Amino acid sequence: MKKNLLVAQSGGPTAAINATLAGVISAANEREEIDKVYGALYGIQGVLQERFIDLNQIVDTEEKLEKLRVTPAAALGSCRFKLSPIEKDDSQYRQIVDIFHRNNIGYFVYIGGNDSMDTVAKLAKYCSDNCIDDIQVIGGPKTIDNDLVGIDHCPGFGSAAKYIAAVFAELEQEMCVYDTKSVIVVEMMGRHAGWLTAAAALADAANVDVPYLIYLEERPFSIDRFIDDLNAKLKDYDAVMIAVSEGVHDENGVFICESVAASKGVDVFGHVQLSGTGKILENAIKDRIGCKVRSIELNLLQRCASHILSATDIEESMLLGENAVKLAVSRQSGLMSSLRRVSDSPYRVVYEGVDIQKVANAEKKIPQNWINKAGNNVTQECINYLRPLVAGEMSCKFKDGVPDYMILK
Amino acid sequence: MKKNLLVAQSGGPTAAINATLAGVISAANEREEIDKVYGALYGIQGVLQERFIDLNQIVDTEEKLEKLRVTPAAALGSCRFKLSPIEKDDSQYRQIVDIFHRNNIGYFVYIGGNDSMDTVAKLAKYCSDNCIDDIQVIGGPKTIDNDLVGIDHCPGFGSAAKYIAAVFAELEQEMCVYDTKSVIVVEMMGRHAGWLTAAAALADAANVDVPYLIYLEERPFSIDRFIDDLNAKLKDYDAVMIAVSEGVHDENGVFICESVAASKGVDVFGHVQLSGTGKILENAIKDRIGCKVRSIELNLLQRCASHILSATDIEESMLLGENAVKLAVSRQSGLMSSLRRVSDSPYRVVYEGVDIQKVANAEKKIPQNWINKAGNNVTQECINYLRPLVAGEMSCKFKDGVPDYMILK
Repeated sequence: MKKNLLVAQSGGPTAAINATLAGVISAANEREEIDKVYGALYGIQGVLQERFIDLNQIVDTEEKLEKLRVTPAAALGSCRFKLSPIEKDDSQYRQIVDIFHRNNIGYFVYIGGNDSMDTVAKLAKYCSDNCIDDIQVIGGPKTIDNDLVGIDHCPGFGSAAKYIAAVFAELEQEMCVYDTKSVIVVEMMGRHAGWLTAAAALADAANVDVPYLIYLEERPFSIDRFIDDLNAKLKDYDAVMIAVSEGVHDENGVFICESVAASKGVDVFGHVQLSGTGKILENAIKDRIGCKVRSIELNLLQRCASHILSATDIEESMLLGENAVKLAVSRQSGLMSSLRRVSDSPYRVVYEGVDIQKVANAEKKIPQNWINKAGNNVTQECINYLRPLVAGEMSCKFKDGVPDYMILK
Repeated sequence: MKKNLLVAQSGGPTAAINATLAGVISAANEREEIDKVYGALYGIQGVLQERFIDLNQIVDTEEKLEKLRVTPAAALGSCRFKLSPIEKDDSQYRQIVDIFHRNNIGYFVYIGGNDSMDTVAKLAKYCSDNCIDDIQVIGGPKTIDNDLVGIDHCPGFGSAAKYIAAVFAELEQEMCVYDTKSVIVVEMMGRHAGWLTAAAALADAANVDVPYLIYLEERPFSIDRFIDDLNAKLKDYDAVMIAVSEGVHDENGVFICESVAASKGVDVFGHVQLSGTGKILENAIKDRIGCKVRSIELNLLQRCASHILSATDIEESMLLGENAVKLAVSRQSGLMSSLRRVSDSPYRVVYEGVDIQKVANAEKKIPQNWINKAGNNVTQECINYLRPLVAGEMSCKFKDGVPDYMILK
């Protein structure tokens, strides 16, 4: 008997999460084991509320599928909702299984990051523990943070990395316009992994000879050392680019932005002024070096820059969606659709499934030996890892000069 | 006798200023009146220092010309240097004329914004007052601020406007991911004109039904009115987008960011914490409304986003460079190469020269009747003006996944 497939999205938005969704829809349409493709709105919360839409009806042409592929942020909506621990209360799991049975859903693909993979792991375990074998639960990875284990790199990261490299290349040109000493500090997202910050290294030396200082959250940060590093570079160069993770912290694990906030000010509304890490470094440079400096926080812009996508990222994200469907129909519940790099040059990956229990709640950081001894840049090995992930250019569709997206809800 | 042409760039970087330079080079190569094309490094300061490079030799293929066209920021370098008033001290002018004569320079094209057009005006006046008729001085316009008079719109503005519209479209998708009340505040550059901020309106209603509140520096700003506007929107909608000019000010002309800074804090280094306008609004929303809010300062990112260019802007910028050469060889000194819009639909412009004396030191603001009565959005007429300027997509070249620029110095 044909079963329906349900797909949902969760966690923070990325520029590639809809490419995976498009891959799921397109592969499910090809499978004779699958009848309808439903989407749940707003993640697992929407599953519990049975907020389903019929994706076959909404995404009913190749053109719409293509548009969805390059639409940023979760088109089905997302949530930050964790299922209760099974041992404490299994009512949510029972409810989900009931809803699945009632809607003849035999395949569930949940696309998300660490927390979402935890949801997949719990649900798969509940089914397996309770001998429910007519529901296959598969995880679809995504996160710009690139911190999922069990996969070479995460969908969404390549596009964010490409955006960051492009921003650095552009800002470098800005700096070289005047022949005065100047520094630009750019703060990237990443409280627990420095992958996005490392991506700045891709622009280093691509166009002009401006030195980069790159500070990842994987190494303890010291403002004194930072000022020394910068002074050393400013001896030989007019312009210096600084890339810093928002999550850099001192030897004791205290975030730089928190340690400085301790002596914060209040604004006219009495509101505490929390400076970002980049702003703190900007102020330190002003005070201790005194040269021209600007800090820029990439903020949400780095997550969803659909006007500059990595073609490799979008292609892989789509194929991971297709692979998720393949795993589901082969009745391999409890896996995350994954890819493994088999060669750097030529770059080649293979698609597979990995045990979701090994993925859930783990974090992949930048290896210490991919960071230079001084702790202010990455090694060539790290760049070799990153380079293929940003290969090729794609962008969202445009209409009347502005982005034109596929809207599902 | 053939004369050489000298071109230089000045003022703040834009994504289109090199397209104008490319237009000058390409048109000068075609003209039999012109021998060599020199570039002066770092603006009029570099002219005074005779820091010239031979552009025919450096940009010697069509491929390099094309690459230059989409390279952001002033490839020749820029300066923020004003010539002394002639009546006070004309030695700099004499020096420039000497340098021009010594290098057989008969044509000088200076590409820049308000200040640079002032330089062109002064130099042209000096030549005319002193009967120096073998040097033609022409201005090439550029500024993302779009505040030059004597031209329908400024080169560089269209690309910045397109970038801003794209950012708003992307952030809208971010907001719609969760079904909770949330606000995003985006701060655009523009101390003296709100054109960049107005560009946000191009993304309004393009994809989803999220209301926009747009505050331009052309109308006095009140935080109380702003909170009222926002509360009214939040009654009917979950998500609201706010666009604000950095230069919004109160009835007395005091910048909001300055009035709030009066009660500023100091950070751990004793450094005064100046909040940007966006951050101030973010804090006001947190305090008075309490919903989820993020503020984003586009900062330098909006000036040089060469990965998303307006094809119209790049094409026009190039043609304005070509037109500058045409004006120069027809011996029309003291003009700015300009364009006039003759039709909105179909969009059509004609190229001309305008008297530089009328351009220098003047500012074009958004007309009051292009702002709605409530002072929190623009009218359809404003959108009709903006729309054609962002038409068509172009981007810089890429190599190994990152921007690949034409480097001249």
